[in-house]
Amino acid sequence: MIRAAVVGATGYAGAELVRILAGHPAVTLSLVTSRQYAGVPFSDVFPAMSGRVDLVCQAFDPRGAIDAADVIFTALPHKLPMAIVPDLVAAGRRVIDLSADFRFRDVDIYESVYQPHQARDLCRQTVYGLCEVYADAIARATLVGNPGCYPTSVLLPLIPLLRQGLVAPDGLVADAKSGVSGAGRGASLTSHICEVAESFKPYKVAAHRHNPEMEAILEEQAGRPVSLTFVPHLVPMSRGMQTTIYARPADGVDEAAVRDCLAAFYAGRPFVRLRPAGRAPDSRHVRGTNYCDIGVVLDARRRCLVLMSAIDNLVKGAAGQAVQNMNLMLGLPETTGLDQVPYPV
Amino acid sequence: MIRAAVVGATGYAGAELVRILAGHPAVTLSLVTSRQYAGVPFSDVFPAMSGRVDLVCQAFDPRGAIDAADVIFTALPHKLPMAIVPDLVAAGRRVIDLSADFRFRDVDIYESVYQPHQARDLCRQTVYGLCEVYADAIARATLVGNPGCYPTSVLLPLIPLLRQGLVAPDGLVADAKSGVSGAGRGASLTSHICEVAESFKPYKVAAHRHNPEMEAILEEQAGRPVSLTFVPHLVPMSRGMQTTIYARPADGVDEAAVRDCLAAFYAGRPFVRLRPAGRAPDSRHVRGTNYCDIGVVLDARRRCLVLMSAIDNLVKGAAGQAVQNMNLMLGLPETTGLDQVPYPV
Amino acid sequence: MIRAAVVGATGYAGAELVRILAGHPAVTLSLVTSRQYAGVPFSDVFPAMSGRVDLVCQAFDPRGAIDAADVIFTALPHKLPMAIVPDLVAAGRRVIDLSADFRFRDVDIYESVYQPHQARDLCRQTVYGLCEVYADAIARATLVGNPGCYPTSVLLPLIPLLRQGLVAPDGLVADAKSGVSGAGRGASLTSHICEVAESFKPYKVAAHRHNPEMEAILEEQAGRPVSLTFVPHLVPMSRGMQTTIYARPADGVDEAAVRDCLAAFYAGRPFVRLRPAGRAPDSRHVRGTNYCDIGVVLDARRRCLVLMSAIDNLVKGAAGQAVQNMNLMLGLPETTGLDQVPYPV
Amino acid sequence: MIRAAVVGATGYAGAELVRILAGHPAVTLSLVTSRQYAGVPFSDVFPAMSGRVDLVCQAFDPRGAIDAADVIFTALPHKLPMAIVPDLVAAGRRVIDLSADFRFRDVDIYESVYQPHQARDLCRQTVYGLCEVYADAIARATLVGNPGCYPTSVLLPLIPLLRQGLVAPDGLVADAKSGVSGAGRGASLTSHICEVAESFKPYKVAAHRHNPEMEAILEEQAGRPVSLTFVPHLVPMSRGMQTTIYARPADGVDEAAVRDCLAAFYAGRPFVRLRPAGRAPDSRHVRGTNYCDIGVVLDARRRCLVLMSAIDNLVKGAAGQAVQNMNLMLGLPETTGLDQVPYPV
Repeated sequence: MIRAAVVGATGYAGAELVRILAGHPAVTLSLVTSRQYAGVPFSDVFPAMSGRVDLVCQAFDPRGAIDAADVIFTALPHKLPMAIVPDLVAAGRRVIDLSADFRFRDVDIYESVYQPHQARDLCRQTVYGLCEVYADAIARATLVGNPGCYPTSVLLPLIPLLRQGLVAPDGLVADAKSGVSGAGRGASLTSHICEVAESFKPYKVAAHRHNPEMEAILEEQAGRPVSLTFVPHLVPMSRGMQTTIYARPADGVDEAAVRDCLAAFYAGRPFVRLRPAGRAPDSRHVRGTNYCDIGVVLDARRRCLVLMSAIDNLVKGAAGQAVQNMNLMLGLPETTGLDQVPYPV
Repeated sequence: MIRAAVVGATGYAGAELVRILAGHPAVTLSLVTSRQYAGVPFSDVFPAMSGRVDLVCQAFDPRGAIDAADVIFTALPHKLPMAIVPDLVAAGRRVIDLSADFRFRDVDIYESVYQPHQARDLCRQTVYGLCEVYADAIARATLVGNPGCYPTSVLLPLIPLLRQGLVAPDGLVADAKSGVSGAGRGASLTSHICEVAESFKPYKVAAHRHNPEMEAILEEQAGRPVSLTFVPHLVPMSRGMQTTIYARPADGVDEAAVRDCLAAFYAGRPFVRLRPAGRAPDSRHVRGTNYCDIGVVLDARRRCLVLMSAIDNLVKGAAGQAVQNMNLMLGLPETTGLDQVPYPV
Repeated sequence: MIRAAVVGATGYAGAELVRILAGHPAVTLSLVTSRQYAGVPFSDVFPAMSGRVDLVCQAFDPRGAIDAADVIFTALPHKLPMAIVPDLVAAGRRVIDLSADFRFRDVDIYESVYQPHQARDLCRQTVYGLCEVYADAIARATLVGNPGCYPTSVLLPLIPLLRQGLVAPDGLVADAKSGVSGAGRGASLTSHICEVAESFKPYKVAAHRHNPEMEAILEEQAGRPVSLTFVPHLVPMSRGMQTTIYARPADGVDEAAVRDCLAAFYAGRPFVRLRPAGRAPDSRHVRGTNYCDIGVVLDARRRCLVLMSAIDNLVKGAAGQAVQNMNLMLGLPETTGLDQVPYPV
Repeated sequence: MIRAAVVGATGYAGAELVRILAGHPAVTLSLVTSRQYAGVPFSDVFPAMSGRVDLVCQAFDPRGAIDAADVIFTALPHKLPMAIVPDLVAAGRRVIDLSADFRFRDVDIYESVYQPHQARDLCRQTVYGLCEVYADAIARATLVGNPGCYPTSVLLPLIPLLRQGLVAPDGLVADAKSGVSGAGRGASLTSHICEVAESFKPYKVAAHRHNPEMEAILEEQAGRPVSLTFVPHLVPMSRGMQTTIYARPADGVDEAAVRDCLAAFYAGRPFVRLRPAGRAPDSRHVRGTNYCDIGVVLDARRRCLVLMSAIDNLVKGAAGQAVQNMNLMLGLPETTGLDQVPYPV
């Protein structure tokens, strides 16, 4: 059995990692850490887990983590991982970091968006953990930067089309909508149910930190400059993300060509599901799962391609993809521990 | 006191009309009709109204409506109004129709989207009831076609900019999100809370009937062809609509120019509120009110103008604008009966 | 025009006071205070109010409040009002306090539940502001202790029956359910939508501070000891409170007798609505209003009387009743400023 | 592998059965039937299941069901199962019926609440499928009447205490709260999100059909008459049920005695979790799981025992308990297929 640790286990992404890993047939969850809840049983923080996860939250200690685990998931706010991941990697541990700290090989982009990077060297060997696109590199990686939730929802529909030149690389628009768990578990007026209920709103309009992450990967994949305006919105729900992307199709491209391109690219990939013609993806259809559902409509009269994706921001957008990365790194079937049957409602 | 009737009073838009008219200081609500609830006290259908609205729902009868009311609001599914409105207008009643039946002067567009029109002549004298744009014509009108909720949310931010040539008329995208009340009060699986909760999804992608309505008015206002891709989405909430519009700004146009244009156009108009720079509109801020809040962000690096609007789909998107139209038609201050202080939460 | 001040205007009860007072035809809202938002326009804190409430939040200062207002509403956490209300009252201002500080004439009960009282003398002249029960005393009062939301929902159905001896005074059970706004606007994990959604739970079981408040008033009204077990629950919604009360009817008492007793007691009281036989109250029917809806069912076979009430915790349970108290104190019609037509949805 | 069929697979309980059985390691889901969706792929009705459940819904046919399955779950409205179950049982199939039709050995009670029974003989050999109480009989049964959701939530906390005489058998009150999925998947105004949101309300007050079911089992377990007033309420959420029970403790009984009694009774039973002192159960903690969480508070001053339970109405209240029954009938570990790790949020 692989021993796995979750550093930052009491945030939503961390707790979701605990859920998945506690049910993973090839893994023993050996350590969960939490600054805020050190010394508290995990199941006191999440009583749903009573009788299922018996670990007590520990304060993070590099030595302890290295001793306890073969694979370490760091689910911390950005800036914290860069300080601890180098030691873990140096000790030979496989690390999957869910923050932004190791998503950028071009550290300059990171620094222009976040803050100075303290582990620049390590960035050179990190792999971007978008499993359906970088599976081979992930399989060889020691350190994976797990993609952001918004980038996952934008990149999966766009990458095959940009690679094939089916859509123009400029003038792209991604209008994304996320449930509130994406904002984390910290107490905040913006997560207060009375402020969120019956509220739908854009935020960080064309100014979200995930925008450069998307563009960097899209440019790498397209092999040329890409320009994408990104506007996230907050949906009055807990989990789920739906993104609608608008693109100019290349001359002569019709809806079938787009659909064929996506179907070919994702053939055999268990977690990407192409919705039938005329059916749109729905965040509820992927809730609690690692699926990314993709829909396609071509507004032929106006020559506008509408791509739609739906993921669970905490699963395919965070913890699920992280475990999928672990599976790839360990040579396990990609779906191991991620194959529970979705809830109908 | 003006006597007002609501035909189709037990749908959501109709009931909202009842709410507003029952509190309107210049109006006596004299008749409410309902096919489904004929003979039932209105307050049995909406117990919130107990002690406030004492009318019993009547089956619709043209003679009865003409006798009972000076102003008649028809809040029926499209196709029904075209059969009854001609008689009401012929009898000298002022009519505000909330369906699509009298929104199009070009009946061909109507017929291409809906069905054959049975009152084509009347369409020539109808006025499109977008109050902030057609106030003068509304003041002289006998018959007003009340705008759809989606068109209201799209037209108010775009019209001033298209009139001034600040944005390109093609390649427009409107990504709209609506609460479920927009789908009406009929029992339906698509309104079932278990299907709606934790669900965010697009529907009628680039195929919604409001799309031609928007383009027709935009072209009339812009004086040239306009192309707009429209994608509505369903939000897990009861009321409210937020639309995000993407447009290419003309050369040299910056965010301030856009903001100035909108501020000038809506100066003195009580129901359009321009949000300060850096603040986005939120459906919750306008809930239960007749406001349309508008926000502006220019993604300067990518030359993409982001316009955002928020309305309550049942108020500014339906019943509130209908009463605003009545006020204009009767020479009353535009805000009469529509000026209650918004709820903070 | 009466000048009114709201001290603590940016909590939910305070903001609801602002809403009601800003629309009150006999009132000028002259001052709003907020410790957290001093110097910030009220409409920046609650953008719904943009264009409607132009006041800037002030830090509280007794002199300023006394100069600015004839009537002062204190909407602060308990313990704070006892320090400031004495000065306001001494200066001749009418004060309606929404905290627990002035709800108890028997200060010992207060101190056993809350903390030592610093204005014991003032407690002797305070009046408990349950408008339908203490209207005469309220009309003569300078200082009113506005009832808690839970007590309001429990007392209104029970008092008439206990006064008439129709139910036994012991073995009473009140199972109450509240929306989350009752917990206030402070950021807290317990108000986080992800923790609240799909969550229904009891809290402070038989240990809530409103329990002694209920029993004190019930005993005063019944003229003998009363024993009531009170269990509050949290409902995944913003506003609203529904309480179900279980009582043993006196021998020979049937449902009609209970209904008659309540109808007689509340005859002519505009804000209490008795639901027809077979219809239960619903928090949604009173949302945003000052109504208390009451329903009655006698489980005859098991000799258990079921009383049900519904209020909006922020209106009849807080700000609305406070304004109703002001109206009574000023000799205005009880419904002034509180008579807007309820929303149908 | 056991072959299992779900008759009535497209209601919420049926679909939940599909979810659990599709992931059950000892089962092959061989047949799903649906009157409404016959001929439609199950995953078209529930797109969440795309790629996971490939069956096409069939119209029900007794011969087909008998041929296809070893175990048959009937998830139909009451009255329908009594017409089809006799044939299935006669053919040697094990049947777990989720309706009320086979919950009563005393058919007179059934007939007084529902309608005439057409399979009275079969009722004599049915077993009430409350797994923690009737495990031995279930293990030997051919036909199990799966308990109602409300009865499950009421019976599990009360039975041990009544058996031991720790609470009085009369004057019991159960105040229960359910998510809307309990009302089924049929389109209905009462499930419309706009009618449900911000709505909390009692319904069928002291008149719900589950009340006699509870009393019948309680009397069987207590060995004497039991009187329980039952009031269900509707919560604005999809899933989940929380019930608060009020009982008079026997003389000398304290909270510890109650807690010990429950702990002893449920020792070794994997799906009943006793909450620690001072912690209440929460519907969210058991969401999507087969757990029943139980909390205890004694209001010592008023001698009122407060018992609280939480279940997922679709799992322990329906499909989960049905599969738990199947496991018991087949000699499988009780938790087989029911042991997924709960979601933290």
